[in-house]
Amino acid sequence: MKAVILLSGGLDSSTILYKAKIEDGCECHAISFDYQQRHRRELHSAVLIAQKAGIVKHQVVNFDLRQWGGSALTDDTIDLPQKRTLDEMAQNIPVTYVPARNTIFLSFALSYAEAISGERVYIGVNALDYSGYPDCRPDYIQAMQEVFRLGTKQGREGQPIDIVPPLINLKKTEIIQLGNQLGVPWELTWSCYAGGDVACGVCDSCRLRLAAFAELGLVDPLTYAS
Amino acid sequence: MKAVILLSGGLDSSTILYKAKIEDGCECHAISFDYQQRHRRELHSAVLIAQKAGIVKHQVVNFDLRQWGGSALTDDTIDLPQKRTLDEMAQNIPVTYVPARNTIFLSFALSYAEAISGERVYIGVNALDYSGYPDCRPDYIQAMQEVFRLGTKQGREGQPIDIVPPLINLKKTEIIQLGNQLGVPWELTWSCYAGGDVACGVCDSCRLRLAAFAELGLVDPLTYAS
Repeated sequence: MKAVILLSGGLDSSTILYKAKIEDGCECHAISFDYQQRHRRELHSAVLIAQKAGIVKHQVVNFDLRQWGGSALTDDTIDLPQKRTLDEMAQNIPVTYVPARNTIFLSFALSYAEAISGERVYIGVNALDYSGYPDCRPDYIQAMQEVFRLGTKQGREGQPIDIVPPLINLKKTEIIQLGNQLGVPWELTWSCYAGGDVACGVCDSCRLRLAAFAELGLVDPLTYAS
Repeated sequence: MKAVILLSGGLDSSTILYKAKIEDGCECHAISFDYQQRHRRELHSAVLIAQKAGIVKHQVVNFDLRQWGGSALTDDTIDLPQKRTLDEMAQNIPVTYVPARNTIFLSFALSYAEAISGERVYIGVNALDYSGYPDCRPDYIQAMQEVFRLGTKQGREGQPIDIVPPLINLKKTEIIQLGNQLGVPWELTWSCYAGGDVACGVCDSCRLRLAAFAELGLVDPLTYAS
């Protein structure tokens, strides 16, 4: 079965790539985006992980979301949140929200999937994301599924492309446990928002990741600045 | 009211830009796409029309849909259909269908609209398109509207961005009549798929346009090769 995997280079998307390939036996085509994000270092990780996993094809799509900004990830004048508690992260849509980012990502994945007569698009959204981000929640994924069905030739001809969100109900600790079973190379992944050569350890994304490894009594093999 | 207008440079999108600005009184922000389409000449038209209409801002977003092709517009090895009858055009999804193109376009428009706290996104789909293209039909537009509501911060906070498709039930002749009332500069617009310096006159798009002008007893001010 041909599948397109949304691969950011982070912990979650690397796990779904390994799940699609090893557990679900898919022919994997990955897609990543250089949208001039602050943390472009993640793209390098995506390339390394795609190579390591040995997939069929890895597409990197380039465009520039700094043209209109609207997010701390695409506008350097907006500061990244730091040292927020996990509860604080879960309560508000953070400034790292990029307007309609997952809709753009899923649209390109849909286009690519239809061009190769694929059957699935994997996306690594999870319960922790959807407490903060509107475009990670189950009802949103369901709405996009309807777009996948109605907005394509394949869908209209009765062969819709399915959105598969394997992590949607998992906590970060459960994702790490799944990734460990699948042999995900955590040392190649990248989660930090800050855009340095070494993960900052203090942005929301680093803190969530570190907290989950710590909760499991595991050591995150990445090097952190603090 | 701030609105983002999907402006291809064609007859339909130029008409909705003029409608949004003149009839609906919107503050207009146009968005166009250089996706390495065969007929990139249309982008030049989009720029001229945006200037002529005197709008606030015109964003041109660049990406490359030739990376996976799948359409006569993004793969030069697929021939453009020529000299098909209007009935033939209406019966099948044509090879000029670009996988998920309108979903990609609407996603970027949504992102831009949210970044500027806009209220509307105008798209020029119409009844003639939706007989052939899956992503021009009313049920598809409705599904995207749900994505606009659920996939954004504004939508979740009760201020969803509306998709406005003013031409959706209009025939090409009715669009030309509307555009005439609004003073759309037809001579600046571009519909031809073929990608030459002069419109070919034989591709589906040229034929639909020429037939509509002829039906109204009007002369299309564009120059045609044949």
